[in-house]
Amino acid sequence: MIALNAETLWIDIEKIRLEAPLVHNITNYVVMNTTANALLALGASPVMAHAAQEVAEMVGLAGALVINIGTLSPPWIDSMISAVSAAKTRGIPYVLDPVGAGATAIRTETSQRLIKEAVPAIIRGNPSEIRALQYAEAATKGVDSRHSSEDALDAAKKLSDALGTTVSVSGKVDLIIEEQNIVSVANGHPMMAKVTGLGCTASALAGAFAAVNNSAFQAAAHAMAVMGIAGEMAAEKSNGPASLQMNFLDTLYQLNADDIRRRLKISIIT
Amino acid sequence: MIALNAETLWIDIEKIRLEAPLVHNITNYVVMNTTANALLALGASPVMAHAAQEVAEMVGLAGALVINIGTLSPPWIDSMISAVSAAKTRGIPYVLDPVGAGATAIRTETSQRLIKEAVPAIIRGNPSEIRALQYAEAATKGVDSRHSSEDALDAAKKLSDALGTTVSVSGKVDLIIEEQNIVSVANGHPMMAKVTGLGCTASALAGAFAAVNNSAFQAAAHAMAVMGIAGEMAAEKSNGPASLQMNFLDTLYQLNADDIRRRLKISIIT
Amino acid sequence: MIALNAETLWIDIEKIRLEAPLVHNITNYVVMNTTANALLALGASPVMAHAAQEVAEMVGLAGALVINIGTLSPPWIDSMISAVSAAKTRGIPYVLDPVGAGATAIRTETSQRLIKEAVPAIIRGNPSEIRALQYAEAATKGVDSRHSSEDALDAAKKLSDALGTTVSVSGKVDLIIEEQNIVSVANGHPMMAKVTGLGCTASALAGAFAAVNNSAFQAAAHAMAVMGIAGEMAAEKSNGPASLQMNFLDTLYQLNADDIRRRLKISIIT
Repeated sequence: MIALNAETLWIDIEKIRLEAPLVHNITNYVVMNTTANALLALGASPVMAHAAQEVAEMVGLAGALVINIGTLSPPWIDSMISAVSAAKTRGIPYVLDPVGAGATAIRTETSQRLIKEAVPAIIRGNPSEIRALQYAEAATKGVDSRHSSEDALDAAKKLSDALGTTVSVSGKVDLIIEEQNIVSVANGHPMMAKVTGLGCTASALAGAFAAVNNSAFQAAAHAMAVMGIAGEMAAEKSNGPASLQMNFLDTLYQLNADDIRRRLKISIIT
Repeated sequence: MIALNAETLWIDIEKIRLEAPLVHNITNYVVMNTTANALLALGASPVMAHAAQEVAEMVGLAGALVINIGTLSPPWIDSMISAVSAAKTRGIPYVLDPVGAGATAIRTETSQRLIKEAVPAIIRGNPSEIRALQYAEAATKGVDSRHSSEDALDAAKKLSDALGTTVSVSGKVDLIIEEQNIVSVANGHPMMAKVTGLGCTASALAGAFAAVNNSAFQAAAHAMAVMGIAGEMAAEKSNGPASLQMNFLDTLYQLNADDIRRRLKISIIT
Repeated sequence: MIALNAETLWIDIEKIRLEAPLVHNITNYVVMNTTANALLALGASPVMAHAAQEVAEMVGLAGALVINIGTLSPPWIDSMISAVSAAKTRGIPYVLDPVGAGATAIRTETSQRLIKEAVPAIIRGNPSEIRALQYAEAATKGVDSRHSSEDALDAAKKLSDALGTTVSVSGKVDLIIEEQNIVSVANGHPMMAKVTGLGCTASALAGAFAAVNNSAFQAAAHAMAVMGIAGEMAAEKSNGPASLQMNFLDTLYQLNADDIRRRLKISIIT
């Protein structure tokens, strides 16, 4: 299997800081500000653009595209389809975050339409979303998950196999799956679930890593690792979820090779 | 009158933390992030969804619906109408925040259309908004109020009587009115007015309380009490409005029964 | 030339705090929350409203209008055109922030349509955006600039001359140009570039200053000065971009005449 460790992660972080790749986001209203700030803190250049008239043009400038369906409506769906189609044509990697797939029909169907139009380099979701994509299982908690990542492992494997893509399932332990390869990342902190949009942030950062690394599997795993490490470091100095959000971004900005070497908990499962 | 005190408030907070009710918000762009975070900090599960294609479905999963008209446009108005209609059919309580009613015709008219389609369990607004709904009085300060809550007491009583609903007027002293019952909540801090969207946050939290308490009057009063207590505790350790916003969310997350017993300033007026 | 110094800046800040002018923003989704908070922290009253049905009405209540094209779509463009037209008719100053002009055709064209419909009192952009407006030069970094403000001086002069308006170019050193007058503001801190939307915040604050000062040149320079001073004071106590954003808003709220006198670095170039 491809190497995945503190050194591969640090190399990618340094690349992002040096190259400041443009990451084009078509994402939900709730998290636009915090995901843009997370991309900046990591060293990337975020842009948000959703008009049908400009998405293909903007994709052409970008190193990666991130599609997040958290607050859908028909014109946005059309733009997402155009954007992933342009990404496919130009060979630009795209990350799909199927927020709330399984909760309503439009979310499940839009995820499927997007995947059909162009296979994402990385699908990153919570366990309920990944199960919804593979098993058409209904969610009952809105955009939260009632499952652990382990509950979604089988669905993730099948989804990855069927599409030939990387699937990243977040949870107490994150699982990243590609073909027969499975790694787990055990970093993070429970209070992170009390901050809105940290899952969406993980998807955005996966875009930044995919812009500098041709291996979607490494990119997806690096994104979860950096999220977990910055999140647990931030939680140690926070009094609640709002200071956690602030300290998370500051930590991401300050992160150094020692932090990563000391903290990274990545395991190769198969 | 129904009991309203530190014990009734604490019971509801514990219920929210235990049950994590899903609160469906169709709200304005400005506050989506901060109100989602406030719902999470209190212990509820927020979801934002506004497409006509999914609002009725999402309402069906939710314990309460919150409608906030702060950044209206025609497709959003249609979705709001569908959502409150679905809430009525399914018996799910809904909170209306008529942001800027009185400032422009579309805001006043949309508030009236929503009320006509389905009577909200709780209407929560600032004094100018409540006066605009009852007296068709024009606002001159955009979405801010040039009136004190006392100036809107008469309008709130008439509105509550006419609709048979709970009206919650925020201000230096908050007033909560239902039929012949009026209570005041005297918690809070003047700097809270310098943070955008804390009124909208109060409406969102009223949704969380309404999801666990059949009395809209208690739910509305509990929401204003928890806002005021967390706000004044946060202000004591803040250097300005941005640290106030952060400390407010952290305090909401940490709030305990003692904080409430020591600080709650609720008075029964009639 | 008109006076520009710590005293003229302080007089305007006191006016804003006293009069709390209503500033109507039609801006991008990413920065709505933070720019509303910045306007409140400075002492102004923000309102966000974008429906074609209400923009002219809302402009009529406002002391200034701010148009920011960061996340365009056709219905928003129509509303922006209506709003600037209403502002022209009523003699209300408007600030244009041409976010990403040069990156995509729709952004460049919309900027030009807005300028043609009604000349802004102030155009505030980064160097790439100002060059794109004057030279139709393509941007290659999304919404970031690959130029220094000095690189855009010639374009800014020509744009100011052609339109008879004030042009404000942000960068390490900000340049404000009107007719033959050029001033530079050398306040600020490099970490400010790692916070999303501080450029947009500068445009919003320019709106607040324009609402209390008939000189667009003074208003534009005062906005850049207050941004830079609050930004550098905030950076001194911040661990990263997220604490910088928080401390920036707190500092804006607390700013006093001494801070300004001690720190202001404004120079008259011509």
